[in-house]
Amino acid sequence: MNDRGGLVFVVSAPSGAGKSSVLRRVLAELSRLRFSVSHTTRRPRVDEEEGADYSFVSRERFEAMIRDDRFLEWAEVHGQLYGTSREEIARATADEVDLMLDVDVQGAAQVRRRMPSAITVFILPPSRAALDARLRGRGGQDDADIERRLGVAREEIERFREYDYVVVNERIEECVELVKSVIQAARCRTTRMRDAARGVIATF
Amino acid sequence: MNDRGGLVFVVSAPSGAGKSSVLRRVLAELSRLRFSVSHTTRRPRVDEEEGADYSFVSRERFEAMIRDDRFLEWAEVHGQLYGTSREEIARATADEVDLMLDVDVQGAAQVRRRMPSAITVFILPPSRAALDARLRGRGGQDDADIERRLGVAREEIERFREYDYVVVNERIEECVELVKSVIQAARCRTTRMRDAARGVIATF
Repeated sequence: MNDRGGLVFVVSAPSGAGKSSVLRRVLAELSRLRFSVSHTTRRPRVDEEEGADYSFVSRERFEAMIRDDRFLEWAEVHGQLYGTSREEIARATADEVDLMLDVDVQGAAQVRRRMPSAITVFILPPSRAALDARLRGRGGQDDADIERRLGVAREEIERFREYDYVVVNERIEECVELVKSVIQAARCRTTRMRDAARGVIATF
Repeated sequence: MNDRGGLVFVVSAPSGAGKSSVLRRVLAELSRLRFSVSHTTRRPRVDEEEGADYSFVSRERFEAMIRDDRFLEWAEVHGQLYGTSREEIARATADEVDLMLDVDVQGAAQVRRRMPSAITVFILPPSRAALDARLRGRGGQDDADIERRLGVAREEIERFREYDYVVVNERIEECVELVKSVIQAARCRTTRMRDAARGVIATF
């Protein structure tokens, strides 16, 4: 079967919607799915490993990669550059695995433009009250921080229509199941199953 | 939420591929999914219930329904008429459930033409040998019967490209999971989740 791997899934969600927990479980429960490792210009934290958490590169190198159009998406956040390289997708295809990208609405829009075949999923919190409670539960943020994040969340949520799929994270088990379903269904699309079907036909 | 129900899933497979067992489990494990009840002109068997197994109607009534374009698909098999009425879909939509149709490749082609939004799935046996073994396992058929069925199966399998999704029934558990994934993913398409998303936005 040569239809394996090379699918790109993009998942976005407002901060506090539980995306990281959902993706961790989806990645643990599905085979042939790899979390995309981003490039960044920021320094590694003590617990971060080069090539596993990020590819840590200099600003000069990152900017050269931008000029060479080597990013599927990139952004500057708090003065540091972050991006998903096209090589990451080529590597996944070569390894016959699919790729999961965790990017914000701007990053998802870039991916969609440069790779229309990418399959995009937006995770929604069940309500403002639920998001508020989750953001407060994290601690370390004052009311102004929370209000600002809720305002950003609202703006991001308005863009749900740009995505192929929408999943509400009311109960994490159900949300994980639905994200997994999107991935598994994409793998069963007829265009992806041609080699498998030809293999069956060849036995007749 | 008003996006619930009204999706139509069509599943086809060659005889012996295990479709009935797969669909029975999918229907038992997923909520808001109803098995479509066909109309037929044949007599009910002793264990069959009107409205549950089939809607049993006279040939005159069935032919009047054909003339009135009340079927999504219909066929004559061994001198008896079988068909899926459009009313069945209207009822499912009203009840906010999705509908599962078990029809052959000809029936699926009719549904696709009359209802392009229907989501179609083809279940493949893993190989000719596996299909042969399953057909023999049923008993009551001579070699000529088996050969004839395998020939028909091959012709049907060649038409897999007409379907949206292809699933190989190698292990039933995996096959059930994948058919469920197709249904669950379809329910998460953004076009189906607009009301749910608007409901979330309204809380902000």
